[in-house]
Amino acid sequence: MQKQPPRPSLLKLRRRRRSAPGTPPGTLVSHPDASPTTIQMVAYSPDDLTEHAIANVEQISGFLGGWPVLWIRVAGLDNIDIIHQLGELFSLHPLVLEDIINVHQRSKVEEYDRSLFIVTQCPSISNHHLVMEQTSLVLAGGVVLSFQEQPSSLFDPIVQRIRQRKGGRIRLSQADYLSYALIDTMVDSYFPILDQFSEALDHFEEKVIGQPDQVMINQIHGLKRDLLHLRRIAWPLRDAVNSLTREKAVISDSTRVYLRDCYDHVVHIIEILESHRERGSDLINIYLSSISNKMNEVMKVLTIIATVFMPIGVVAGIYGMNFDVTASPYNLPELGWRFGYPFALGLMGAIAVGFMIFFKRRGWLGGGKGRKEKL
Amino acid sequence: MQKQPPRPSLLKLRRRRRSAPGTPPGTLVSHPDASPTTIQMVAYSPDDLTEHAIANVEQISGFLGGWPVLWIRVAGLDNIDIIHQLGELFSLHPLVLEDIINVHQRSKVEEYDRSLFIVTQCPSISNHHLVMEQTSLVLAGGVVLSFQEQPSSLFDPIVQRIRQRKGGRIRLSQADYLSYALIDTMVDSYFPILDQFSEALDHFEEKVIGQPDQVMINQIHGLKRDLLHLRRIAWPLRDAVNSLTREKAVISDSTRVYLRDCYDHVVHIIEILESHRERGSDLINIYLSSISNKMNEVMKVLTIIATVFMPIGVVAGIYGMNFDVTASPYNLPELGWRFGYPFALGLMGAIAVGFMIFFKRRGWLGGGKGRKEKL
Amino acid sequence: MQKQPPRPSLLKLRRRRRSAPGTPPGTLVSHPDASPTTIQMVAYSPDDLTEHAIANVEQISGFLGGWPVLWIRVAGLDNIDIIHQLGELFSLHPLVLEDIINVHQRSKVEEYDRSLFIVTQCPSISNHHLVMEQTSLVLAGGVVLSFQEQPSSLFDPIVQRIRQRKGGRIRLSQADYLSYALIDTMVDSYFPILDQFSEALDHFEEKVIGQPDQVMINQIHGLKRDLLHLRRIAWPLRDAVNSLTREKAVISDSTRVYLRDCYDHVVHIIEILESHRERGSDLINIYLSSISNKMNEVMKVLTIIATVFMPIGVVAGIYGMNFDVTASPYNLPELGWRFGYPFALGLMGAIAVGFMIFFKRRGWLGGGKGRKEKL
Amino acid sequence: MQKQPPRPSLLKLRRRRRSAPGTPPGTLVSHPDASPTTIQMVAYSPDDLTEHAIANVEQISGFLGGWPVLWIRVAGLDNIDIIHQLGELFSLHPLVLEDIINVHQRSKVEEYDRSLFIVTQCPSISNHHLVMEQTSLVLAGGVVLSFQEQPSSLFDPIVQRIRQRKGGRIRLSQADYLSYALIDTMVDSYFPILDQFSEALDHFEEKVIGQPDQVMINQIHGLKRDLLHLRRIAWPLRDAVNSLTREKAVISDSTRVYLRDCYDHVVHIIEILESHRERGSDLINIYLSSISNKMNEVMKVLTIIATVFMPIGVVAGIYGMNFDVTASPYNLPELGWRFGYPFALGLMGAIAVGFMIFFKRRGWLGGGKGRKEKL
Amino acid sequence: MQKQPPRPSLLKLRRRRRSAPGTPPGTLVSHPDASPTTIQMVAYSPDDLTEHAIANVEQISGFLGGWPVLWIRVAGLDNIDIIHQLGELFSLHPLVLEDIINVHQRSKVEEYDRSLFIVTQCPSISNHHLVMEQTSLVLAGGVVLSFQEQPSSLFDPIVQRIRQRKGGRIRLSQADYLSYALIDTMVDSYFPILDQFSEALDHFEEKVIGQPDQVMINQIHGLKRDLLHLRRIAWPLRDAVNSLTREKAVISDSTRVYLRDCYDHVVHIIEILESHRERGSDLINIYLSSISNKMNEVMKVLTIIATVFMPIGVVAGIYGMNFDVTASPYNLPELGWRFGYPFALGLMGAIAVGFMIFFKRRGWLGGGKGRKEKL
Repeated sequence: MQKQPPRPSLLKLRRRRRSAPGTPPGTLVSHPDASPTTIQMVAYSPDDLTEHAIANVEQISGFLGGWPVLWIRVAGLDNIDIIHQLGELFSLHPLVLEDIINVHQRSKVEEYDRSLFIVTQCPSISNHHLVMEQTSLVLAGGVVLSFQEQPSSLFDPIVQRIRQRKGGRIRLSQADYLSYALIDTMVDSYFPILDQFSEALDHFEEKVIGQPDQVMINQIHGLKRDLLHLRRIAWPLRDAVNSLTREKAVISDSTRVYLRDCYDHVVHIIEILESHRERGSDLINIYLSSISNKMNEVMKVLTIIATVFMPIGVVAGIYGMNFDVTASPYNLPELGWRFGYPFALGLMGAIAVGFMIFFKRRGWLGGGKGRKEKL
Repeated sequence: MQKQPPRPSLLKLRRRRRSAPGTPPGTLVSHPDASPTTIQMVAYSPDDLTEHAIANVEQISGFLGGWPVLWIRVAGLDNIDIIHQLGELFSLHPLVLEDIINVHQRSKVEEYDRSLFIVTQCPSISNHHLVMEQTSLVLAGGVVLSFQEQPSSLFDPIVQRIRQRKGGRIRLSQADYLSYALIDTMVDSYFPILDQFSEALDHFEEKVIGQPDQVMINQIHGLKRDLLHLRRIAWPLRDAVNSLTREKAVISDSTRVYLRDCYDHVVHIIEILESHRERGSDLINIYLSSISNKMNEVMKVLTIIATVFMPIGVVAGIYGMNFDVTASPYNLPELGWRFGYPFALGLMGAIAVGFMIFFKRRGWLGGGKGRKEKL
Repeated sequence: MQKQPPRPSLLKLRRRRRSAPGTPPGTLVSHPDASPTTIQMVAYSPDDLTEHAIANVEQISGFLGGWPVLWIRVAGLDNIDIIHQLGELFSLHPLVLEDIINVHQRSKVEEYDRSLFIVTQCPSISNHHLVMEQTSLVLAGGVVLSFQEQPSSLFDPIVQRIRQRKGGRIRLSQADYLSYALIDTMVDSYFPILDQFSEALDHFEEKVIGQPDQVMINQIHGLKRDLLHLRRIAWPLRDAVNSLTREKAVISDSTRVYLRDCYDHVVHIIEILESHRERGSDLINIYLSSISNKMNEVMKVLTIIATVFMPIGVVAGIYGMNFDVTASPYNLPELGWRFGYPFALGLMGAIAVGFMIFFKRRGWLGGGKGRKEKL
Repeated sequence: MQKQPPRPSLLKLRRRRRSAPGTPPGTLVSHPDASPTTIQMVAYSPDDLTEHAIANVEQISGFLGGWPVLWIRVAGLDNIDIIHQLGELFSLHPLVLEDIINVHQRSKVEEYDRSLFIVTQCPSISNHHLVMEQTSLVLAGGVVLSFQEQPSSLFDPIVQRIRQRKGGRIRLSQADYLSYALIDTMVDSYFPILDQFSEALDHFEEKVIGQPDQVMINQIHGLKRDLLHLRRIAWPLRDAVNSLTREKAVISDSTRVYLRDCYDHVVHIIEILESHRERGSDLINIYLSSISNKMNEVMKVLTIIATVFMPIGVVAGIYGMNFDVTASPYNLPELGWRFGYPFALGLMGAIAVGFMIFFKRRGWLGGGKGRKEKL
Repeated sequence: MQKQPPRPSLLKLRRRRRSAPGTPPGTLVSHPDASPTTIQMVAYSPDDLTEHAIANVEQISGFLGGWPVLWIRVAGLDNIDIIHQLGELFSLHPLVLEDIINVHQRSKVEEYDRSLFIVTQCPSISNHHLVMEQTSLVLAGGVVLSFQEQPSSLFDPIVQRIRQRKGGRIRLSQADYLSYALIDTMVDSYFPILDQFSEALDHFEEKVIGQPDQVMINQIHGLKRDLLHLRRIAWPLRDAVNSLTREKAVISDSTRVYLRDCYDHVVHIIEILESHRERGSDLINIYLSSISNKMNEVMKVLTIIATVFMPIGVVAGIYGMNFDVTASPYNLPELGWRFGYPFALGLMGAIAVGFMIFFKRRGWLGGGKGRKEKL
């Protein structure tokens, strides 16, 4: 009877590890749960393509300058040394390295000289829990570095598009277009999550009236909390993408058109989140009204029972009194009547029927959920 | 008794088909439920007019340049090839084509070179459900392309105005005025919907006090959700029309005056939506208070019944005790009285009358909805 | 007992007549309930003054140019021809004429060449209902046209001020000052309405605790809905007056000082509306708490009654048992006691007193509204 | 028992007297409750100081030009003539005079030529009610005019600082610094009021759980209404002081630094008001939950009583049945048992104990406010 | 049973001591609870470092000019004279000194000539209470003055970083970088507090359903009030840090990059606070629903008991009536039946079983929290 409805997700945030107040900026300490660091490199031109697994950061130097677009995919952040070497190779600002390692950053875009640093959170559902994976991008000249907390298949379709010669535009474009493609993929990863929330809301809207229980209110609250969290992530993402569309030094005009489209998607995500959130709040109100309605029904049953049986009991009590019928003819003469007992039963029946009619007129019987209450 | 009030609409959104994260932008895949594509062409000058059903996109080329205004009406989006050919004929950006095909875009205005792309959602009530139909416009030179998800009669009055020589201004004006006329028609299609919501709110405000039931709260919630959805659609429409009124390259000054009027209508729509939404929220509160009031009445009946009959029952119980009246004159002497039974009944009556007066003074009788409670 | 509190107003909006989506802009169709059109003309200079009732629009031409200020007061909008002729005489834009006729415009200020068009809604209480009357002004050169839905005395004080030679500034000033005087009058017409709402709120705040009933919540809701409506009208009025204060082509510097004062009044109106609205929301909460309190009191009475009489009834029941007192001395020996009956009554009294002390300690007696509950 | 908690203030706004819509601007009509007008004059230079009570406005002329700073303190506004003469002497705009007289202005700063007009509302607690006193300042050249509704001691500390030669800066500074000192005094007069509200909130937060009653909710509502009113007054004050800090013609650079500090105080006031208001809203929620909790407790007592005594009553009823024990050995054989009565009492005791254990397990006993319920 | 959950903090604000309205700005009066004033001085260059405890302000003069960075750490504010001497030594504006002494300032940044004044509030948990410590910074040339209300270890890590030659950047940078390091430390001191609130919210979300009690709602309210307070502190901090990032006269470009990072942290803090606050509000709703659910369960038990035992009691009552069985065969013939008593008991049992089945079907039994209700 207490079947758990198929609640799609419950936020289980990993506890964030932050450096203590007062530690110098740029201090790199890896997260205890960090995954092992691996590096994939994809270098391509319109005509050519090469892919390598990188074990040693020095390997990368050989490719620099030789290819129009170089994509260095880092997954897993436990090897601080490698991150540090990459930072030195591409002269990344210490704060950039710190932001890459500390995996609970707000989404933002920072501009350093002629390089762009972009950090975002990508939501995914893992084991029925909503998890956020931080993904950072550095766009510097013809090089794109992407850093992911965990190895994931999120960017695999991009790799596919690069590999297929006919994939077209991505091979013909510069590194800024590759950055756009990665950002677009990250933004679009919100939509399947939103669809799951939408289904959960539909589910609760259907169930909340028929079978409200305390477990449900807790689940609705959990849903709202997740939406709150996603919204907290999505708003800075909006600002970040917006500032990218106004960036002129690193992003070309033709790519900016695509980023405007991407910005539109982020705004759409936020609008959906806001309207989901409001639906969640309404659900709690409906739940409360549902509870009140149920209590109302319980009270009606109690009142009907009491109203019918109390007067009947009083009648029975009266004829159970021990007045001395022999003392006077006024003392309980009914007791000696030939049809005294049937008369008493009839009186009780009349009381019961009378109250039933009263309740019927008040609309208390046959109310509730469209079925007559069986009394 | 549980008659369904004439709830005018319930949002039944078609599930949106979105391409998976990571697919390249501009990928055109038609919606599985898309209607078959048809093309109507209307070409006119102040003095001349011709209308054609277009089967082959190449037919259009012959008209280009020959007419001051060319309106190509596309309805139904299942034929990707035709859309593609139109895109090539008028050099549309791949993102424009993608936005035309993917029918759950936010309303927006995009400017590409000297062409304008406008996409909006038009609400309509179909089969007691609110449905949104995406309509896109492209304004490029003297050509206006309109794309509708479904064949609809929405733009028929415009065609009528073009056909009537005396329709005046539209025939004398350029393509930008035709665009305005189409946008104005789309914006004005919100008003009949809003009127339906307004009537539904009036209906609920009337019913919520007399006959609150759980079905009603669900319908009010449905109404609020629809309003939430419309609002989510209307806000970006406002931004889109606003940006049109500030557009100077493609829109002429005289048309801009009309667009300002149109912008005013959109703002009016949003204001009505917001105030409807607030009325919806208040309705839920009134519903809750109505339930509480009903429970209060039920409790009063129970309390009155219990308060009247319990003491009476106790009196009956006392005179039903079996104390040995022969043992002493202190034991239940009333039992032997000549008017013992009438005395007992009188005592009971006095108790009942006394409590009735008490309840009368508290205002518990004759309260509720203006009619005396029949006891 | 159910006296209707003196609720000052209930919004009864006339259903708006809007042209169907797709009709050309500037189409003039009079409202079916429109009043007959009358025209009054007031022409004045610092030294001279003339007033005429105008039957034929051509009469006006003779006055043009001859007077520094010409005020044409149109009341009632059913005569489309006259409106049209005025439109031609003063070369008004078709959209201006449409806005004048369609009486549910948002307040706005539009600038056409060197003429200003201002449309506002003036609230008034008619027959216990809030009604909004649309009033439009056109300021073009030395001419002010005012259009009112209904003949009303709203502008009569202005006419008085013009007639009195000593009225001073208005006679010495230009048409822009007359426009200001009219706008100021329209803005100030909100204050008496707000005062009525304020009184209604005071009334409800006083009554909601003593005598909450379902009628009241409905009235409070009606009040909130009216406030919502007024607010929806007042916000665009604010923007309109604000844009007037920044208008430099038609409004002189000295008049702008007065308009700033007028703008201040509009902002004040909005602030009062917002605070009224919040008080209305709080009232609903207090109402709910009042209902809960009443239910609490009812429950206490029920509980006290049940707690006192149930144990007493049990005592009576015990001494009504038929155990065979002759079978053994352990069977109901009290029945044979000399003071058995007084003992039983004493036991009952002790129980009643005991529970009363218990309830007294819990604060259930003598609670409520400061008067002891009579038991 | 119903002791009125020490609610510090209850807004008792004097009904505002506003001129009817349509009266010309600048019409001066004194408020019927206005206090008699008195004028104090303080003229000072770094080295010199003179103070006069002014009976005739013409007296002032003699001081003009002779002193670097002239402060004319007007208190009480019933003498329209004097106000008028002052207006003429210092060429004040008619709107300024109107704003000085009409005592329910929004706070604002207006600039006329080279004079500044500042109007604010100062809150004070008088006779347990919150009252707002309008105070206006005019700063024109070396003259500061201050107008107060009522004689008050608010500005006395400023006079003291002027009198004390060592008071320093104020004597060395120009009239703009005096204006700052007056504004700062008015702004700081909010803080003691806010502290009183803060104490009232603390008081209610403490009491709302232990002893919720309907009087309290009304007081909390009154508190919220007062906060709402103060907030309505404080927001425009913020804008006014902000515009002063950006005023460059009349305010010197060194004084502007002080005004920035003053602006900071106003923002602080608004932040405190907002957070007070939110605490007020929360209090209402807690009150409602407190009521619900109390009802829950009442219901538990009722349920415990009913559950214990109803079955006991049934047992007594059974052994009160009159079955003919002589007719068969199956009819109520207990009645003839030697220990029949003790057996029945034991059965009753067992039922009572059984239910007590049941309630104990459910946590219904010993709940509430940490003390065992005495049964 | 009433165990106090480990509520981490309860705001206990020290009552603020504010000067009376009208006192001159810059008046320095120490707080009665102020700690004794101590001064530490740290002077350093990339190669050299010296630390001194300062007893006499004149000692400082000797170091001025000789070191690139001079940090004067003042802790405790009871010695007004010392503060005054520092003010004179570094020519601080009287308002700066006043703000340093009056310990309830809003966070702000003020610019005076070429010096910057920064004042913030740092939260900490002391003795289970949230306390705010005001910390002020003055950055003037190569000197940083920091003023703390209480001696605290907050800045000790910075001293450590300065002492360690390898601490690097801080030793190589100018005073503006030291200011940044101090501000960053203050900002980061919010995060451990936020984590505590987060844990408290988790705790309440877990407990609110199982064991709601009135103490809990009070604690949740206290939590919300603390969050409200923190938010009131954090918003101006955001503005302050933001204005620092746009400061160009005193802050170098390289330090500004770090301040942008710091600004990001403040925004993050505010986002977390807002989402905590919303979770707090939801908790109150869930609490209310939990109470309602509990009452529902209580009501069900009462109704079941009454419904089962009332009819049984009536049956017992009927067979307790004293109709004269000898008067006619219609009078209570059951009393003489051989199996009359078993029949009556059977009837009672049937009634009980019947109602149990009825309740079972309604889902009233076996509901609640997943365990069968033992009846």
